[in-house]
Amino acid sequence: MALNVTQKLIKNHLVSGEMIPGEEIALTIDQTLTQDATGTLVMLELEAMGLDIAKTEASAQYVDHNLIQQDSKNPDDHLFLESAAKRFGLYYSRPGNGVSHPVHMQRLAKPGKTLLGSDSHTCANGCMGMLAMGAGGIDVALAIAGEPFHVKMPQVWGVKLTGELPDWVSAKDVILELLRRHDVKGGVGKVIEYYGPGVANLRAMDRHVIANMGAELGATGTVFPSDGEIKRFLTEQNRASDWLELLADDGATYDINEELNLSELEPLIAKPSSPGNVVSVKDLVGTPIYQAYIGSSANPGFRDFAIVAEMMKDKKVADGVSLDVNPTSRQMLTDLVKEGHIANLLQAGARLHQAGCNGCIGMGQAPATGRNSLRTTPRNFPGRSGTREDSVFLCSPETAAVSALMGEITDPSTLTMTYPEIKDPVKPTVDEQLLESPLPLQEAKQVKLEKGPNIASIPDMDHMHDTMEIPILLKMGDNISTDEILAGGARVLPFRSNLPEISKFSFEIIDETYYDRAQAIVENGGHAIVAGYNYGQGSSREHAALAPRFLGLRVALVKDFARIHWQNLVNFGILPITFVNETDYDLLEQGDILVLTNLQHHIRKNEPFRITIKNKGLEIEVEHALSARQQDIMKYGGIINWAKSRV
Amino acid sequence: MALNVTQKLIKNHLVSGEMIPGEEIALTIDQTLTQDATGTLVMLELEAMGLDIAKTEASAQYVDHNLIQQDSKNPDDHLFLESAAKRFGLYYSRPGNGVSHPVHMQRLAKPGKTLLGSDSHTCANGCMGMLAMGAGGIDVALAIAGEPFHVKMPQVWGVKLTGELPDWVSAKDVILELLRRHDVKGGVGKVIEYYGPGVANLRAMDRHVIANMGAELGATGTVFPSDGEIKRFLTEQNRASDWLELLADDGATYDINEELNLSELEPLIAKPSSPGNVVSVKDLVGTPIYQAYIGSSANPGFRDFAIVAEMMKDKKVADGVSLDVNPTSRQMLTDLVKEGHIANLLQAGARLHQAGCNGCIGMGQAPATGRNSLRTTPRNFPGRSGTREDSVFLCSPETAAVSALMGEITDPSTLTMTYPEIKDPVKPTVDEQLLESPLPLQEAKQVKLEKGPNIASIPDMDHMHDTMEIPILLKMGDNISTDEILAGGARVLPFRSNLPEISKFSFEIIDETYYDRAQAIVENGGHAIVAGYNYGQGSSREHAALAPRFLGLRVALVKDFARIHWQNLVNFGILPITFVNETDYDLLEQGDILVLTNLQHHIRKNEPFRITIKNKGLEIEVEHALSARQQDIMKYGGIINWAKSRV
Repeated sequence: MALNVTQKLIKNHLVSGEMIPGEEIALTIDQTLTQDATGTLVMLELEAMGLDIAKTEASAQYVDHNLIQQDSKNPDDHLFLESAAKRFGLYYSRPGNGVSHPVHMQRLAKPGKTLLGSDSHTCANGCMGMLAMGAGGIDVALAIAGEPFHVKMPQVWGVKLTGELPDWVSAKDVILELLRRHDVKGGVGKVIEYYGPGVANLRAMDRHVIANMGAELGATGTVFPSDGEIKRFLTEQNRASDWLELLADDGATYDINEELNLSELEPLIAKPSSPGNVVSVKDLVGTPIYQAYIGSSANPGFRDFAIVAEMMKDKKVADGVSLDVNPTSRQMLTDLVKEGHIANLLQAGARLHQAGCNGCIGMGQAPATGRNSLRTTPRNFPGRSGTREDSVFLCSPETAAVSALMGEITDPSTLTMTYPEIKDPVKPTVDEQLLESPLPLQEAKQVKLEKGPNIASIPDMDHMHDTMEIPILLKMGDNISTDEILAGGARVLPFRSNLPEISKFSFEIIDETYYDRAQAIVENGGHAIVAGYNYGQGSSREHAALAPRFLGLRVALVKDFARIHWQNLVNFGILPITFVNETDYDLLEQGDILVLTNLQHHIRKNEPFRITIKNKGLEIEVEHALSARQQDIMKYGGIINWAKSRV
Repeated sequence: MALNVTQKLIKNHLVSGEMIPGEEIALTIDQTLTQDATGTLVMLELEAMGLDIAKTEASAQYVDHNLIQQDSKNPDDHLFLESAAKRFGLYYSRPGNGVSHPVHMQRLAKPGKTLLGSDSHTCANGCMGMLAMGAGGIDVALAIAGEPFHVKMPQVWGVKLTGELPDWVSAKDVILELLRRHDVKGGVGKVIEYYGPGVANLRAMDRHVIANMGAELGATGTVFPSDGEIKRFLTEQNRASDWLELLADDGATYDINEELNLSELEPLIAKPSSPGNVVSVKDLVGTPIYQAYIGSSANPGFRDFAIVAEMMKDKKVADGVSLDVNPTSRQMLTDLVKEGHIANLLQAGARLHQAGCNGCIGMGQAPATGRNSLRTTPRNFPGRSGTREDSVFLCSPETAAVSALMGEITDPSTLTMTYPEIKDPVKPTVDEQLLESPLPLQEAKQVKLEKGPNIASIPDMDHMHDTMEIPILLKMGDNISTDEILAGGARVLPFRSNLPEISKFSFEIIDETYYDRAQAIVENGGHAIVAGYNYGQGSSREHAALAPRFLGLRVALVKDFARIHWQNLVNFGILPITFVNETDYDLLEQGDILVLTNLQHHIRKNEPFRITIKNKGLEIEVEHALSARQQDIMKYGGIINWAKSRV
């Protein structure tokens, strides 16, 4: 049977399940990627699992998010991550090396491989003929420990590219066109696979731009073939031997079919405050701007900066416009310096920042109140820039550059100047030494984790008890979000590496007494909570399960669960059960004592079972929806213990 | 009479007073400098004064401190400052142009002139044959409005330089040697004037290094002659016509005499946590380091970066060491890029930050907990780095660089490598257009101040009342600091441009009810406070007077005042009086009603006068120590009204 590239990648890594869209499959993971914002917890999880050394072919820990060091917390995390990388046999990329996705592409990505990363833009490396997917931190920790990754078999959405990009139109306009057509949920449950004669007209880094923002369509992944252009790219990186050809078979088919003629594209722009809010740049011409922002994983390439530099040469940024340049990798910045592009940008008035994610994730470069910011970044969700009422537009480097010169949104295709031709550096820089290589096992075992005062190991958690007699500490209503369970933000997030500290914020928004009441009985077997519909909606943060679990939460009894939080509850050993008769919710009150017996048995059987409200002398019927694997995880008291039993 | 350079500068600018050390003199101010952290209040003061246009020869507003934009407050301030610069006829230096002191030196500093700046390192431009002094914001606002600056006539401390710096020893070691000899108070009440044959062996930017850290000796200023080297420097900047020769007369004398033979110097280092804690680098060899930090106004020169780049060429920063490079001006960064130095630094592992003050004032680059940071910055006070328990050492670029390579403190003079010779760029960059020039008066008058939601004008304040009947809202003890009157820190400082908001924190640490109680009677004539000895000690922040004044504080009756806060009280129209009989302090309680009558008369006469405690039927005797000028300021209700009457 003729296979497309996605199907080949999945077939070669399939551990279990059937390749039928929507069915759960398990895949071998060859490579992983973690960044610093999510990586500290992943490393603590590896420690808790007792992992000796990474089981993957290559795993890399990057430091690119939390580069602002206003106090000791971020630099302490960096030292911890470096020591953890050494301890667990990972590559380590120091602060200043750049954004994980382009650095991974330059140094480690390989056609034909799977890549799992604790960052939603991990999909960017699908540009290299890889199956690259973002996932939660614990999933990546398990992958590092050698466990397969479970995911629903996606539909493969074939996008046939024809034609060639006109002058002043670039890769960003390609993905903006897809967002214009399909909006931010158009890719859910799908892998977008690009093919056709137009692919050859896109350079590897242009494909990165397009693959990266597949995340904005909600896609599971984006896949480009590995062709001669990928060979050229790898050769340039001194990694020709890492190349292999990976193309769709003749006659391969796709679950969904679409065509996009590159020749017909025009400059596009996403208006505030959604990447799907795409219009033609023409429609906004004359809108005043405050900021033009170049860089990020959504436009990380040498050409993405060089084209701006060429357009700015001997010109000056408009008064009152901040031109923020965020290089994406040390190696690329070195080339931009050597080729004279950075000097041109500086002389035009650019603010040159260190290589990293920076303002793309709200770490600096916030715009002034109510002023328009044009960015080449992937996202413009409200407030993501750091400014509460921001006004962020997403566009190509060309559109951002010409608008910075004019002080207002300008369509680059209306310029009279010749479209600058960007030449590659004659001898591109290859920076091999600053991505530190893993230590061999015997050396790695000697490394001590460097834990600053704000970094605490994940405490041991016990296995599930067969019988529980626990009080209901909170009774909540419908639509409780993970923000209410454990807030995000600047007050809470600095404690991301410190479970005892961050747990103090658990349910604080709902009931300030929760922490003290939970603490008081944590040694007596813990407690339960009760809630209504859609419990745990919102952010996927794992701390919203881990922190209450640390305080003794053992059972969540609700009308129904939001999907991701439900998975997180299981992963951290909290039994998620639902009412068989939803009216039983009304029988329960804070302080009631629940008695659950024979739990090992009930969890194994996928049937409703009865629990007792001891103080009221009542029984109610509850049920669970755990898969066989999840039943196993519950038995061990969570995924860390479960993994520990396997490593 | 033969004069030294300092005496010539003072004589040429003397408005009043006698040139006798310790006597108050008034000086014409030719140039001013404000940065963004202090400048927003200065601009609001100019607005409140009703200034039309700056009366100085050149005034410049720089944006170099608050470059981290995590939300809209800093970028809103930048826009406000740009509009204020346009409105009041100032030069404006946009974010990314660099640190005020080197940029001012490159573009505006002129031999023979006076410079007043709202930044304690303003003294750096004394390297150009200027009398350059730091001062409070309101002093600079008055200077911009054309008022002379009042200061005590300093002693002139002549430092005769002989010899020539050995290899591996540079300008930073000169000033560290002076700090080793005299510690951080050795320069109080003095201007340090360098002369002698060794001066010719120091380049203009090396003199900047030495003049800058005169602030660390507590000196009023540092003065270098304007000689052929300054001519060379100005010619390089396309400003040859701004040069004039300014040397000490033959036979000139100094109040204090000292000699320093450059040839005898060795690499020095200031240990935590004082710039005066200086030892030989030799004494610390082998101490492990976490960070090496290059840049800041204390080592801003092309050579200060180039020497590091040459030392790092084809080498790699030690594992676990963060090499933070903070360029100091756009122009210099451009040259460092063009000459290949930045590429060498990047390839060695440097983190390249935007041009600005950055970590030098705790805006990023904080070190990890308890780890040693070697910095070329001017100060290492505890916690200034952002890390509470930090360990910061001050040293030359040479010492920082070699230590970064080795991962531990290393004496550069023990290296076997040849001391790199740093060549000037053949055609140095001159960046004239990005320092925006002042608008002419008629255009300036049309400019509207751009006030983001967190920027509020200083409200009108009424003139002093001749009779007051006001309650005592607070009675406090001894040694109340300005930190207790109005706290600093991240919670309060973001409101530095918003008097109504920042006033909410007034006396909050002492009595949380103060704000509400003061607000309730602000329209009824205000209130008084009573305190013991040393009232208003600590930081010089003007908000500690301005904010309570906004809430109606009219009279401060205490046993005695700390000097700077006393001046600030007068400046903001709060009458500072002391008990004639200190035991009267015991008669007063919170809630007592003070009646003061015939105040215009009493203030004019420098004699004790009686006030009534109405509810107790008592009279007590009080006095003031206001100068004639201060009496005038009090009459107008503060210096803003006083200045308004004169502009």
